[in-house]
Amino acid sequence: MPYGFKIRRNVFQILCNLLDSTGHDETLFPLLIPETSLAKESAHVGSFEEECFWVTRGGSTPLKVKYALRPTSETVIAPMLKLWIRSHADLPIKLYQIVSMFRYETRATRPLIRMREVASFKEAHTSHATLEDAEAQVKEAVEVYKRFFDAMGVPYSISRRPDWDKFAGAVYTLSFDMICPDGRTLQIGTVHNLGQNFSKAFDITYETEKGTQEHIWQTCYGISGRAIVAVLSAHGDDNGAVLPPNIAPIQVVVIPIPYKKKEGYINKICEDIAVKLRKAEVRVELDLRTDLTPGSKFYYWELRGIPIRIEVGPRDVEKSEVTIVRRDTLEKQTCKMSELVPVVQKLVGEIKQDLWQKALQWMKEHVYRVESLVEAKQLLSRRAGIVEVLWCNRAECGHRLEEEVDARVLGVPVDTGEKIDGKCVVCGRKAEHVVRAAIAY
Amino acid sequence: MPYGFKIRRNVFQILCNLLDSTGHDETLFPLLIPETSLAKESAHVGSFEEECFWVTRGGSTPLKVKYALRPTSETVIAPMLKLWIRSHADLPIKLYQIVSMFRYETRATRPLIRMREVASFKEAHTSHATLEDAEAQVKEAVEVYKRFFDAMGVPYSISRRPDWDKFAGAVYTLSFDMICPDGRTLQIGTVHNLGQNFSKAFDITYETEKGTQEHIWQTCYGISGRAIVAVLSAHGDDNGAVLPPNIAPIQVVVIPIPYKKKEGYINKICEDIAVKLRKAEVRVELDLRTDLTPGSKFYYWELRGIPIRIEVGPRDVEKSEVTIVRRDTLEKQTCKMSELVPVVQKLVGEIKQDLWQKALQWMKEHVYRVESLVEAKQLLSRRAGIVEVLWCNRAECGHRLEEEVDARVLGVPVDTGEKIDGKCVVCGRKAEHVVRAAIAY
Repeated sequence: MPYGFKIRRNVFQILCNLLDSTGHDETLFPLLIPETSLAKESAHVGSFEEECFWVTRGGSTPLKVKYALRPTSETVIAPMLKLWIRSHADLPIKLYQIVSMFRYETRATRPLIRMREVASFKEAHTSHATLEDAEAQVKEAVEVYKRFFDAMGVPYSISRRPDWDKFAGAVYTLSFDMICPDGRTLQIGTVHNLGQNFSKAFDITYETEKGTQEHIWQTCYGISGRAIVAVLSAHGDDNGAVLPPNIAPIQVVVIPIPYKKKEGYINKICEDIAVKLRKAEVRVELDLRTDLTPGSKFYYWELRGIPIRIEVGPRDVEKSEVTIVRRDTLEKQTCKMSELVPVVQKLVGEIKQDLWQKALQWMKEHVYRVESLVEAKQLLSRRAGIVEVLWCNRAECGHRLEEEVDARVLGVPVDTGEKIDGKCVVCGRKAEHVVRAAIAY
Repeated sequence: MPYGFKIRRNVFQILCNLLDSTGHDETLFPLLIPETSLAKESAHVGSFEEECFWVTRGGSTPLKVKYALRPTSETVIAPMLKLWIRSHADLPIKLYQIVSMFRYETRATRPLIRMREVASFKEAHTSHATLEDAEAQVKEAVEVYKRFFDAMGVPYSISRRPDWDKFAGAVYTLSFDMICPDGRTLQIGTVHNLGQNFSKAFDITYETEKGTQEHIWQTCYGISGRAIVAVLSAHGDDNGAVLPPNIAPIQVVVIPIPYKKKEGYINKICEDIAVKLRKAEVRVELDLRTDLTPGSKFYYWELRGIPIRIEVGPRDVEKSEVTIVRRDTLEKQTCKMSELVPVVQKLVGEIKQDLWQKALQWMKEHVYRVESLVEAKQLLSRRAGIVEVLWCNRAECGHRLEEEVDARVLGVPVDTGEKIDGKCVVCGRKAEHVVRAAIAY
């Protein structure tokens, strides 16, 4: 719907700007992937074949080769890369697209979180001459995603997914997860190093400086409409959405408090305020509806998460003041009319920062380091958030952990710099990593 | 590909801005349309059933209801409008979306012109309380499209399609057609008054001010990736694309003419020029590639349609000048370095205007008013453009005209204000309209 779409525009615009400014080019590849292409990488097709929607007919004519609706685009981009890439001078190629993607979900769907038609999906695909370049690209992608979620004040955990849970066709997968208000985690972004798996399957080679032919190295990384869920669930409260001002389609709503025979005068002042703020590039909505009480308007805009409400009543007018209410704290303050623009501009920055700090603090309080499976299970059974335990790094113990605590291993947190000294919580052998687990969406 | 996508971004941004500023809201509706929905409007399904791609399986499971990939979105939006619209206060609703759409084309496909996956499609859908409001909306849509094509300097013919060629489910269809360089016409935009056809099929009603229930009135209008074809074919020449500066992803390319031992110095001046122009918000590319001669660079950028080339050679540098070459006329001029920014800014405006004027003149020269079928056929057989003849307005004569001249009736030109005085070119009865015909893509 229109208001939601405006939030989507703002969210994806931040992401596009970050990708554009780091040398990514936007593109558009076909939705329909011939079965013959999808089948070229064996791990990939094994994972996706049963999860695809299949187009089998054009009109009433059966198609000779059936098409999958893209579940992801590696296999439709690869044949083009094979044509475009000749020599090392053509590399790197960093492409992205914002499209819809499809999964034939057999699990229960949930709006924006798990859908059969993922209406908003940003997928990036990069090609490189060396493993080192691909590794550096993974780091760049992680930095871009960090800056993206930071810009929305959304805290995250970054971990390397265990091998049994990586993207089909990847060498390894890094994942951004957030903790939702209900204590479950939600995967909100993934970064994959594909190695040469797809380039070998599709035989995509380039001529090196020495004149030899080598297969390219690839990465891919994606963020979906879940980014919208992330910002909604990181900041929302029992009164509805709480939008950071940089995401909010409307940053300030101006509401007159009518007083007998002064309606026209008060409305005029509200209009002046709107004009003044718009000149200062604040996104303002002026709510002059006559069929709603001020109270219903407050409720209406609170639900939609508008960061700042300005009320103008007869007493405010007398004192050349207005009343300002923050959506995040619901705190009221009065403000001299003459200081309105700088006060609002300052608030816009403060609210964004305060929302982020509050969300960071909340996240911190919901990550638990524990030393036994019993403790871990107890926390997870009441959906307390993420638990961290020490782990020997063997898949056997990872699976065992998942069974014992009835949760999902998110993986080993990335770049914590922590020195590990202790024993695996499952087998008691020397631990190699901290590993995170949670009840995941 | 990236450069093409940047052209697409600029083209569709103009369209979005026009729609946003006329109160349209952007939305996103599902791609997959259940067969049961598509079938509700009989003329509509009759036209599209055989032209749809059909999704019949999820994984290996046959779907109970098969899905069409959207050939257009009336039937997937209608069920939502039925939920959203309660009273006259909810109207008008003006929605649009930019999505991909699909036709199982059995005719030969052509890049951007006739594709099975139309990767870029802007469709607008509006709902109104009265027929008058819907008529006014058709006029607004025509205005928006005029301003859109005018902004790109693309001339058009607007005509009311004959009844036998209107959109399936519409009361009538207005169409924008351009004349391509080969003399064929290309339909580049359509506006449809849907009347109550879909609202009756889906039973979408609203409560009037008097408390009665009425079916809503609807319009829809669309522009596809053909808008990109339009701008390319209106202005291109034998050396490649010629882009209007407001569409060009790169407006100015700066190319050093290297001279022995002065390369560094000349490159530095080119960099300064790029910085200066970028500060003035000109989109500049600096081509310092060392593996290409200046001549190859000229060719490279001409092909891509960059409106202005700036060459900096040793003699220019001595005189504190640069050489400026316009892509549209290939005219050269010298310019004092100190005057560069205003000269470029002025040229940007001039080129846009000159391209438009030239295209308008060309179009004018390719519309022929003729008085006999023989003349019409002769002109059309050598693809001279659009022919106009007088017509009695009877379908019988329209079909006969199409047969006799072996071309397509585009329809009656809209709003010409011309008084008709003469006889139908087919039957000799009193003519009611001018009608246009052409060899259409």
